[in-house]
Amino acid sequence: MSTETPPIVATRAVLEELLELVERGQLTRLPALVGEMHPSDIADLLASVPSEDQRVEVLKALPTEVASETLAEMEEDEDRAELLAELGVRRGAELLQELADDDAADLLGELEPGDRDRMLAALPSEEAGDIRELLRYDDETAGGLMTTSLVSVSTTATAAEAIGEIREKGREVEELYTVFVVDQRERLEGTVPLDDLILADPGDTVQSLVVPAPATVLPDTDQEEVGRVMGRYNLVNIPVVNDEGSLLGRITFDDVIDVIEAETTEDILRLAGVSDEEELKGGWLDSVRSRLPWLVLNLVTAGVAASVILTYEDVIREVTFLAFLMPVIAALGGNTGTQALAVTIRRIAVGDELPGGRFQVVGKEVLVGLLNGFVLGLLFALFAYVREDNPLIGVVVLLAMWANIVVAGFAGALIPTVLKRLGVDPAVASSVFVHTLTDLVGFIMVLSLAAGLLG
Amino acid sequence: MSTETPPIVATRAVLEELLELVERGQLTRLPALVGEMHPSDIADLLASVPSEDQRVEVLKALPTEVASETLAEMEEDEDRAELLAELGVRRGAELLQELADDDAADLLGELEPGDRDRMLAALPSEEAGDIRELLRYDDETAGGLMTTSLVSVSTTATAAEAIGEIREKGREVEELYTVFVVDQRERLEGTVPLDDLILADPGDTVQSLVVPAPATVLPDTDQEEVGRVMGRYNLVNIPVVNDEGSLLGRITFDDVIDVIEAETTEDILRLAGVSDEEELKGGWLDSVRSRLPWLVLNLVTAGVAASVILTYEDVIREVTFLAFLMPVIAALGGNTGTQALAVTIRRIAVGDELPGGRFQVVGKEVLVGLLNGFVLGLLFALFAYVREDNPLIGVVVLLAMWANIVVAGFAGALIPTVLKRLGVDPAVASSVFVHTLTDLVGFIMVLSLAAGLLG
Repeated sequence: MSTETPPIVATRAVLEELLELVERGQLTRLPALVGEMHPSDIADLLASVPSEDQRVEVLKALPTEVASETLAEMEEDEDRAELLAELGVRRGAELLQELADDDAADLLGELEPGDRDRMLAALPSEEAGDIRELLRYDDETAGGLMTTSLVSVSTTATAAEAIGEIREKGREVEELYTVFVVDQRERLEGTVPLDDLILADPGDTVQSLVVPAPATVLPDTDQEEVGRVMGRYNLVNIPVVNDEGSLLGRITFDDVIDVIEAETTEDILRLAGVSDEEELKGGWLDSVRSRLPWLVLNLVTAGVAASVILTYEDVIREVTFLAFLMPVIAALGGNTGTQALAVTIRRIAVGDELPGGRFQVVGKEVLVGLLNGFVLGLLFALFAYVREDNPLIGVVVLLAMWANIVVAGFAGALIPTVLKRLGVDPAVASSVFVHTLTDLVGFIMVLSLAAGLLG
Repeated sequence: MSTETPPIVATRAVLEELLELVERGQLTRLPALVGEMHPSDIADLLASVPSEDQRVEVLKALPTEVASETLAEMEEDEDRAELLAELGVRRGAELLQELADDDAADLLGELEPGDRDRMLAALPSEEAGDIRELLRYDDETAGGLMTTSLVSVSTTATAAEAIGEIREKGREVEELYTVFVVDQRERLEGTVPLDDLILADPGDTVQSLVVPAPATVLPDTDQEEVGRVMGRYNLVNIPVVNDEGSLLGRITFDDVIDVIEAETTEDILRLAGVSDEEELKGGWLDSVRSRLPWLVLNLVTAGVAASVILTYEDVIREVTFLAFLMPVIAALGGNTGTQALAVTIRRIAVGDELPGGRFQVVGKEVLVGLLNGFVLGLLFALFAYVREDNPLIGVVVLLAMWANIVVAGFAGALIPTVLKRLGVDPAVASSVFVHTLTDLVGFIMVLSLAAGLLG
């Protein structure tokens, strides 16, 4: 049992031992080595084994139950589907059968269609049917996250009968925290937590114990929304129902923790101009593919914004100090825009709205910009005035900085809000828009004011 | 039961009704209005009631159990502690008694010391003692998150005895998913999930059912680490133990979802230069306080970086085109630095390390920078060459852009890694460092190359 020691350190020594066993072909000693390790830790070990052949060897040497959970805990970008395919249809189907249907469907979904069909054909027909159902749903929806494995009882049952149902079916259900209660037409009435069932008198009716679900989701509800609702209501599992309210499955908290982490990773990276295709663990060429298009777009937009400078070359020749002012004022506009963007995008992500709704957010950013812009403008104007000994330069700096900061706050709040409204992911495009705008406003303000006042 | 309808819409109509009841003083009809609403939804309603007096009125009119859970679901920045204080010692203590000890401690921790002591004195002494224990721990540690409310049994007990223990003590324990198993000296042996207990034969010993905990945490473990471990091992609750391995309490998954959300909000905002004191719901002056210091720092660093331009005024007067090149090359360096920063900081946050460790991350970013920088440099160089009809300008642009992009990737990966090593939050300071550096390198490269090649 590890306490303070981070798991990564504990497994490093094991990894060396594992690699030695693999080198020497002593794989029969593998189960003893990984012994009581958690499948998540074994998955990390496996991902560190250098060659794919060796990884397949290791998976073959592990007990079926351990090997299946290890695959389930691996990441898609660690090529777990290839490992599964390499194991062959028979061993692959054996592993899949050990898994909960949602984990099996996730794995199968990553296989090539041909491999997938062969594996499905090797599974018992009922299980294959359940998994085929799940495969119909988009990965990033409630249907793609849910498992159909659950215990449900009728409203007319007693606590004792519900416990009987658990004893009959519960052995196959993992992460069993609640019993779902349905009416005769399979429509969800609510849930009974296991502890309430244990506390109840055996003769109590389920009807007297049932708690209405604070929320349910449809199979096509976006996974981000699922995470938001489960976090909001502290749900250990959430029922998935169809349009008629019939129970289709459930999503457990652990899937939702993964979703929240994946969605925030996506938001942070997209905000920074890294498209989500770049997985954190990808190779350097993946990173180039993920980032270069965005940088080229930025080169074009930054170039277009800066090209306004080319139309004022005479002014610059006369007042070269402007070449110093412009990048600083543009940079501060960019920083302010990033602040407003981050706050707005995060607010959208956590579903927090100010009481007054969208416009209040924009209004607030303008207020913030008015004050921040004035302070920054004044500081920089004083410096410019003293340095150049020209009060008019001070006026140019104050007005240009002030305007740019206000525009930055306004755009940083408005653009993601509008994009969200239009159904576009606000994190992707907002930052290009905002930074082009702040560059442009910064340059134009400095140059046109300078041309007017100093020319 | 809401399905697709987002809760926020459902509650808006209720809010109007609530405000009307408050206006008319018909608060006795309040419990019927909020009826089966979830405390999270009532908390949102309450936060939207404009005056504090009215909010106190509403809390007084709610049934004790509902009022207490509503307070627990409110946010610290919604001034819930002030509401609790306004309720007075007697009613306040009544509400606190209804809550789990961790929620009660969180609320009490937000009170003024005087109010806190008075409320604690009004609580039953055992409960007050438990809460005092919890108040000793830092908010953002495992101790600050844990509840001492749990069911534990000895290894020598049978399944039937364990169920008996639940029936005796379980009524006071919320979020009861597992029974903790301890030896005679209260040292943790592992856990038994409730479903395994129900599935077991009554005579089975707990020893035969116990599952070792895949991880435990110490009371002073940082909450971010707690979230990471629970997410990694899919734990519905995690035991908190002391140095000797004795069980002190447990942390449930719902607290961890809140932690993950809070920590990522913090990371995103800090990366964007918004210090965490600014809550998403704060007023505009809070935002100014949170952002202005960072902007002033940026003004200084951007000004210092750009001041290199002032030493090359002669070159600029001769080649005003440089005034156009510099901000574009500096901006692309900044964008590249942000990409590398976001990936590195996110990798640190989720505890993902590349197999080769820290240096591989930096090496990868340099490789990415070499290729991206070459492509961007070449594109911009071609444009500059054609525009100015001077191949030497093209050389200046290619070299300056290339160097700046490589430096940006290198610094974007190295600086947060080093800061993390030094125990400094990498999100706070990295972006100032990296952007100052990319500004500086961009300006110096353009100007010094231009002075050398074109002067």
